[in-house]
Amino acid sequence: MAKSSFEYVKTFELDDTVLPNSWIVVRLDGKCFHKFADDHNFKKPNDIRALRLMNYSAYSVLREFNELLLAYGQSDEYSFIFKKDCNLYKRRAAKLLTIVNSKFSSSYVFYWRKFFGDEELKYPPTFDGRLILYPSQENLIDYLKWRQADVHINNLYNTTFWALVLKGNLTPSQAEKRLCGTLSADKNEILFKEFGENYNNEPEIFKRGTLLTRKCITDEESKKSVKIIADVHDDMLKNNFWQEFSGHLIKPKNLLAHKGSMTDMIKEQI
Amino acid sequence: MAKSSFEYVKTFELDDTVLPNSWIVVRLDGKCFHKFADDHNFKKPNDIRALRLMNYSAYSVLREFNELLLAYGQSDEYSFIFKKDCNLYKRRAAKLLTIVNSKFSSSYVFYWRKFFGDEELKYPPTFDGRLILYPSQENLIDYLKWRQADVHINNLYNTTFWALVLKGNLTPSQAEKRLCGTLSADKNEILFKEFGENYNNEPEIFKRGTLLTRKCITDEESKKSVKIIADVHDDMLKNNFWQEFSGHLIKPKNLLAHKGSMTDMIKEQI
Amino acid sequence: MAKSSFEYVKTFELDDTVLPNSWIVVRLDGKCFHKFADDHNFKKPNDIRALRLMNYSAYSVLREFNELLLAYGQSDEYSFIFKKDCNLYKRRAAKLLTIVNSKFSSSYVFYWRKFFGDEELKYPPTFDGRLILYPSQENLIDYLKWRQADVHINNLYNTTFWALVLKGNLTPSQAEKRLCGTLSADKNEILFKEFGENYNNEPEIFKRGTLLTRKCITDEESKKSVKIIADVHDDMLKNNFWQEFSGHLIKPKNLLAHKGSMTDMIKEQI
Amino acid sequence: MAKSSFEYVKTFELDDTVLPNSWIVVRLDGKCFHKFADDHNFKKPNDIRALRLMNYSAYSVLREFNELLLAYGQSDEYSFIFKKDCNLYKRRAAKLLTIVNSKFSSSYVFYWRKFFGDEELKYPPTFDGRLILYPSQENLIDYLKWRQADVHINNLYNTTFWALVLKGNLTPSQAEKRLCGTLSADKNEILFKEFGENYNNEPEIFKRGTLLTRKCITDEESKKSVKIIADVHDDMLKNNFWQEFSGHLIKPKNLLAHKGSMTDMIKEQI
Repeated sequence: MAKSSFEYVKTFELDDTVLPNSWIVVRLDGKCFHKFADDHNFKKPNDIRALRLMNYSAYSVLREFNELLLAYGQSDEYSFIFKKDCNLYKRRAAKLLTIVNSKFSSSYVFYWRKFFGDEELKYPPTFDGRLILYPSQENLIDYLKWRQADVHINNLYNTTFWALVLKGNLTPSQAEKRLCGTLSADKNEILFKEFGENYNNEPEIFKRGTLLTRKCITDEESKKSVKIIADVHDDMLKNNFWQEFSGHLIKPKNLLAHKGSMTDMIKEQI
Repeated sequence: MAKSSFEYVKTFELDDTVLPNSWIVVRLDGKCFHKFADDHNFKKPNDIRALRLMNYSAYSVLREFNELLLAYGQSDEYSFIFKKDCNLYKRRAAKLLTIVNSKFSSSYVFYWRKFFGDEELKYPPTFDGRLILYPSQENLIDYLKWRQADVHINNLYNTTFWALVLKGNLTPSQAEKRLCGTLSADKNEILFKEFGENYNNEPEIFKRGTLLTRKCITDEESKKSVKIIADVHDDMLKNNFWQEFSGHLIKPKNLLAHKGSMTDMIKEQI
Repeated sequence: MAKSSFEYVKTFELDDTVLPNSWIVVRLDGKCFHKFADDHNFKKPNDIRALRLMNYSAYSVLREFNELLLAYGQSDEYSFIFKKDCNLYKRRAAKLLTIVNSKFSSSYVFYWRKFFGDEELKYPPTFDGRLILYPSQENLIDYLKWRQADVHINNLYNTTFWALVLKGNLTPSQAEKRLCGTLSADKNEILFKEFGENYNNEPEIFKRGTLLTRKCITDEESKKSVKIIADVHDDMLKNNFWQEFSGHLIKPKNLLAHKGSMTDMIKEQI
Repeated sequence: MAKSSFEYVKTFELDDTVLPNSWIVVRLDGKCFHKFADDHNFKKPNDIRALRLMNYSAYSVLREFNELLLAYGQSDEYSFIFKKDCNLYKRRAAKLLTIVNSKFSSSYVFYWRKFFGDEELKYPPTFDGRLILYPSQENLIDYLKWRQADVHINNLYNTTFWALVLKGNLTPSQAEKRLCGTLSADKNEILFKEFGENYNNEPEIFKRGTLLTRKCITDEESKKSVKIIADVHDDMLKNNFWQEFSGHLIKPKNLLAHKGSMTDMIKEQI
């Protein structure tokens, strides 16, 4: 079997190692998730089951790969941040991109029932991914702020849009026209005056997305410190968030104590 | 909301478009599948359920992306070949790599029960992926020959190894020692003389892996030509295979008529 | 001397090996050569001294690197084609790009006087470079046709433009306006009717640029076959050129016999 | 002229933009400079004319491209550092690499006579180049320390080696054997005891290489501050060098005042 005569084709595989000493971000996006959401009766403007499944799938990825520092998700996208000095797979781009992408995708199907119960998954979903490097802490923080600013803008729009459609009986195109050119303040006012809704009272998970970070917590029974992955909805656009958190970006072993509520995800880990 | 002041981070996303006029190969490999196989009671040396699930997951990918010319799989790996002039996602490497990787991974979980029945999937699997370009038809054919030569070598080894362990009552390390330095002929002889097994009679799917290609078939009832994805186990190391098939590599619209058996996968499509 | 503690910075140097089995084209372009031409009194529309210096500098590069198959130049640009199976510097892009770029740049200054005589070189020129891969012979031929079609278009325009300016006493902007929207036939007619010039009689080097290829020639005295680098001005847009020449692209050792005139460059080599 | 039908080949030129917010280092190395040095009677172990020509060629590059922050050279190599936020040619790697490489190479020939006088340049030299990114100031400083530590090690070796050969009448291979396994202290001792040479008294340019940086100087006549490119031989391995200098790496507009001697290079600029 002339194996050796074909093996030269291996040399066509080129090295895709990425620059050392930079944060590696892998961002996944649901492909055709507008249709996927319709096909699976996602509630509008936000489906809490879908968000929790996204978070749990991301949690499944973080649990698997210790080199991942944190993850941040919103809507049908999730960003994973590898430690600056990550040397997993010698920093080969395709490897890092695909293990995150694959584990997330398989987890999404695996845990579907846990969050959607009897709502049947009709077909396997697809997530695309990209890999981006950030050389400085400032760039990385701005990346996370950028994604969270995006949630705010989209969620305020969607919340108002679907209030107009579902409660205001406008057609989607009428609602779109109504919102065209409006500012945040205008949308807040529409929600409040026309539907009696205070946008500030919307759940944090809708307004801010979800940040998964490695923290520690003291187990009340054993009094021992336990490492956990915490799901929080902190405001990353505020500077005091980063005053506390940024040390962890540089020295991932410095874990902050978790002070927030005991979420289902956290309870599972104790 | 100062969105714009963060949006500059988008410029860190670099273009990863690949060379035009070359075949793009995406190869997926199961991560830690030795353990995964043990955890899920895969039969040794080959588990037909696992191979069929791999094939069906690959079929799920081919069905979704028309720009895929063919796929070839063996053991826990699968190679997908995009058409030479594929312009999907403008040939951006990360996109092409992740949509194949994601759809395959989610399909593997989604269709698990179809092939494994009551054998429960214990956790979501991970597949890593890589992307390789082949500029000439000769290189691409040699790639496929390389992967198929690999099946032959590995499968003959594994078949003999597990015969020695399961039927010959050797320990794994004794079997390894026994096979050290043996040639193909030696292994064939061990199988035949000691276990009465003729390696040639092993199922084609074990010896050759599975090729998924787009073909056409005449529906017996309607007499119409139907486009299908066929799962075959042809010998790609033989030149006459390529005499018939290579035209399809260059002109993917030229579909060959399927002449082999009506597999479950094909029946499903008619 | 704690050398080792700094040496880690070497790992930031990433592999830039290019795809095997593809033609590597390095194209150099004069930087700010409009100004350079003015500063050195280049004749308009073509300065034969400048073209010969470009050709000789390219010849100096070809003579140095045997892995170079051919070179083609026009105006202030030159393209160098490495053999398809070139393995020089293991196909590392930066190495291949810079050795061609450097040798060409230093040769341009070194040989300036040979072609410009008393016209003094006022400052060292700069050439930028890029590297492009072509996976098929058809693509490579089309590349060369593209560059030669470019000469034709530009040279006919420039010849007519400078006739209008130098002989027709138009200002540059008047000449530009006059030529705006004209076709090739119109420019030929302007040259012929207004200036009595038949564009076809222009020197081949102006109309077609210069191709440097490795050929062989029989030395009249010794009757031996000698390998040379020939400078020709063949019409690469004609198919019969490629009927004769394309074998050399695939098998660079198959040298064609030089049939054209004995140029100064060739004479120097015998 | 069917130009358009060939122009598709332009799409094979792929984007090579490098990561923003990182220092871009271009390092040039003389190709076959051992032979080049012999061919041009370079003095051993250091030829001051050759070093000055290297420096002047680098100065010619810095003068041309304002986006270059500094350059550092030793022996037959020179490193050029672009500002962290450099946006020249949109940070396209090949462009940045080749303009530095080309200008340096053409300058080397252009200024040869200025430093070598009657010693004739026999052929045009070749420099290869590479491009490396450094994401943090610490990495960049370590890069410069690495190159300077390299000078020290090589120069001490070469000084001792050539003392043994030129003054000690050893053959090169005897000298090599003699130095095999020796430490710095051993070499210092050989120089001192056998040849009465104190290595510390060697010229700074030999021991430390040359750093070209943008500084300002007060013109004694006009009392105005003048921007200059200064050639210094500072000890970059000392931390107090960086205490003063590192601010300039981040904010290139903050120019330090030049305090050292008025070199020929500086005088030329006032």
